Amino acid sequence: MFLKFFPREINILDLFKKQVGFAVDAAQFFKKTVSEGTVSTETLNKMREIEHQGDEVAHEIFDQLNLTFITPFDREDIHTLCEELDNIVDMVDTILSRLVIYKLTKVDEELVEFANVIEESVTAVASAVNGLRNMKNAKNILDICREVNRLENVGDSMRDKALGDLFEKEKDPIVVIKWKEIYQDAETILDICEDVAHVVKNIMLKQS
Amino acid sequence: MFLKFFPREINILDLFKKQVGFAVDAAQFFKKTVSEGTVSTETLNKMREIEHQGDEVAHEIFDQLNLTFITPFDREDIHTLCEELDNIVDMVDTILSRLVIYKLTKVDEELVEFANVIEESVTAVASAVNGLRNMKNAKNILDICREVNRLENVGDSMRDKALGDLFEKEKDPIVVIKWKEIYQDAETILDICEDVAHVVKNIMLKQS
Amino acid sequence: MFLKFFPREINILDLFKKQVGFAVDAAQFFKKTVSEGTVSTETLNKMREIEHQGDEVAHEIFDQLNLTFITPFDREDIHTLCEELDNIVDMVDTILSRLVIYKLTKVDEELVEFANVIEESVTAVASAVNGLRNMKNAKNILDICREVNRLENVGDSMRDKALGDLFEKEKDPIVVIKWKEIYQDAETILDICEDVAHVVKNIMLKQS
Repeated sequence: MFLKFFPREINILDLFKKQVGFAVDAAQFFKKTVSEGTVSTETLNKMREIEHQGDEVAHEIFDQLNLTFITPFDREDIHTLCEELDNIVDMVDTILSRLVIYKLTKVDEELVEFANVIEESVTAVASAVNGLRNMKNAKNILDICREVNRLENVGDSMRDKALGDLFEKEKDPIVVIKWKEIYQDAETILDICEDVAHVVKNIMLKQS
Repeated sequence: MFLKFFPREINILDLFKKQVGFAVDAAQFFKKTVSEGTVSTETLNKMREIEHQGDEVAHEIFDQLNLTFITPFDREDIHTLCEELDNIVDMVDTILSRLVIYKLTKVDEELVEFANVIEESVTAVASAVNGLRNMKNAKNILDICREVNRLENVGDSMRDKALGDLFEKEKDPIVVIKWKEIYQDAETILDICEDVAHVVKNIMLKQS
Repeated sequence: MFLKFFPREINILDLFKKQVGFAVDAAQFFKKTVSEGTVSTETLNKMREIEHQGDEVAHEIFDQLNLTFITPFDREDIHTLCEELDNIVDMVDTILSRLVIYKLTKVDEELVEFANVIEESVTAVASAVNGLRNMKNAKNILDICREVNRLENVGDSMRDKALGDLFEKEKDPIVVIKWKEIYQDAETILDICEDVAHVVKNIMLKQS
């Protein structure tokens, strides 16, 4: 209701829609890449492109935030939301880079599973962020946030299982070092999604 | 003085008392478990219970924060305090999980020492948080915060010594990977306690 | 212009000048130490001295912040700026400590390169922070911030190359564990510098 009178505010929601769209692109590209089981420097170039576009929207949001006096929700929440969405894309990029740098070319079933859950969680995050456009979505947004929290717990168990198996089966410490980092980074993406859900929930509750 | 007129605000202090109580429970349970030297899935279940109860209070605090217009101290400080207390419990849970997943069953003297200092620090943190109820405690709270800072420095030295010994004596890289993570996580708990002390100090100074 | 009427505010800019000065001291000392290729407990004592002086200024800033009603820029920005400058010094100290604890005494060309870029970035950060004294510097400050961002990207590539070489050439997993941590910490300093540049840019845009 409040939003009607401030066309500039719609603008920030449009920018968030764009930004979270790049997060979804990153998650889908990650899933596709990992499922196909081959990461190359070409893969990295494509990923960097997504990251670069995401960065540009993030900068636009920060610029808007610095220039706009009235914002549709707390400046601090806008700031955090923008940073966390940026972190999702950065972390996907980090994992893909590590796979190349560490020359981890053989398919890893655990990482494929992680990629599926990450895509699910980022897609849910996008629905929640886009839902902010209409506060009538409140109940729906809360349900989505709960789902994102659930997926974070799923990710915790997946990481624990993956680390347990890794230390159980892999005897080459160098390989252990590499995969341990990859699994922990993958789980971190689900943590970031939970942080986003948390901000979205806060924004919504403050408006209600 | 201010608090008298706003009974709802007392509520948030009551909730913090409960939350920091679960942090103390976690620290004591950690000390007991590590001293006895056996971590089992049963241990984890008991720890999860403490964590779950802590989570519930944290959610209550966030809900209160979103619904209450007037708060006894800055919303941002309440938010940070709640998150950091949550982080203490989570990190204790993480270390216990790792001990099980990594199958580290033999007693480690260094971890016992860490557990003692962690319990001391979390107990001090609880006194500081509960002290916020009465601003006449100001001097006392400042002393406690200084003690928490001192314990963080103690933790730094303990971690440095533990890592030094580990790299000196342990020749199995897989074991090095495991304990290095455990020691660094243990020290992180003392960092978080210092963060809590910092917020408490800020809250107090703003009120004075 | 605003600043003229509030002499206390000048005070905070003076304190930031002092604090960022210690960050530069730390970066220069790090470069010198790493270039000479020998880190001793004496080195650590000298570094601790810089850290201790930096800490004192940070405490002064927090005290000012808690006692001052009117601040030259957002309290939250002052808070973040102060914390991040503190983090630069702490992280340099951490790396030097690790070199001693891990007994990494042989010169490492990669770390020398990192130290050069770190010194460049921290020096740029100091110019940006000190530039806040006069908002006529706006364009200049923005240029410096862009340079800090560029150096962070340089650092990312350096870390990726360093890690790639490490896993390629080093066959002792214990040595891999040690250097991997050092490189990642070195890159983290450039991340922190970017965070500082980000805050400085925000402060400036809000004032304009």
